[in-house]
Amino acid sequence: MTVLFSKRKNVEEIEEGNKLQPKFDTNGLIPVVTSDSHTKLVLMHGYMNDEAFSLSIKTGYAHYWSRSRKILWKKGETSGLNQKIIEMKIDDDQDCVWIEVSVEGNGASCHVGYKSCFYRKIIFDENNGSTKLVYTEKQRVFDPKDVYGDAPNPTKI
Amino acid sequence: MTVLFSKRKNVEEIEEGNKLQPKFDTNGLIPVVTSDSHTKLVLMHGYMNDEAFSLSIKTGYAHYWSRSRKILWKKGETSGLNQKIIEMKIDDDQDCVWIEVSVEGNGASCHVGYKSCFYRKIIFDENNGSTKLVYTEKQRVFDPKDVYGDAPNPTKI
Repeated sequence: MTVLFSKRKNVEEIEEGNKLQPKFDTNGLIPVVTSDSHTKLVLMHGYMNDEAFSLSIKTGYAHYWSRSRKILWKKGETSGLNQKIIEMKIDDDQDCVWIEVSVEGNGASCHVGYKSCFYRKIIFDENNGSTKLVYTEKQRVFDPKDVYGDAPNPTKI
Repeated sequence: MTVLFSKRKNVEEIEEGNKLQPKFDTNGLIPVVTSDSHTKLVLMHGYMNDEAFSLSIKTGYAHYWSRSRKILWKKGETSGLNQKIIEMKIDDDQDCVWIEVSVEGNGASCHVGYKSCFYRKIIFDENNGSTKLVYTEKQRVFDPKDVYGDAPNPTKI
């Protein structure tokens, strides 16, 4: 029988072996960093459960577990902004996944309408010790209302 | 009084405002994606608690919370491979940080000795449905034994 994931047995095999032995956390999730294979911009940070991870590997398209909506989610199923996986890597202790993707449609990945979820940089003022956020993307790629309508915003306070 | 972090009050301000309002999880941590500002390679995925986040902002050098060692940790304090922060971003719902860094010393960031913790890609064999890992970095930049000696390996089964 062939396997996608094999059992974690020892540190040497996890760090230096050629078997995929992912570690899911106590909620059954593994964090995922998603970057654009062309621009190299980090687009988003999400989570996969074992099913989302398996589907991502088998179909070549990014699937995630939505913690706020508590559902398996193919990226782009509402917006059409599918993420085609170009390369998928696992880290040293196999508790994090990095995927480089090509984004279909208008190239955006953020539900707020920007290309990347990371559209603001943190600026520290050494003179008074304060911080502020400054936009690094000047304008939205799309209007979320046009794409998502009245669907609940996944951002929670 | 100046503040690094301000209180989360509403979704609009979190997503579109200019105030840093990070969300720490139930363990008091926020995930951090670290990439190389020159090569754009994702180097590692870690966590910061509020103190590590504050120190990273104030000093301009990456500090993390080690979940395995349960200590605040300035990256490079043992190895000399400090990460100078070039740019720091927060995502839409402010529950993840992305830092672009310049790595001092030999340029490596992985405790196993590679530049990136993501030194293996996942290959799926469509014919038999199996996976394997293939190295994308051909050799180590340093020997972990020379750098860390007998310190316990942070990777856990």
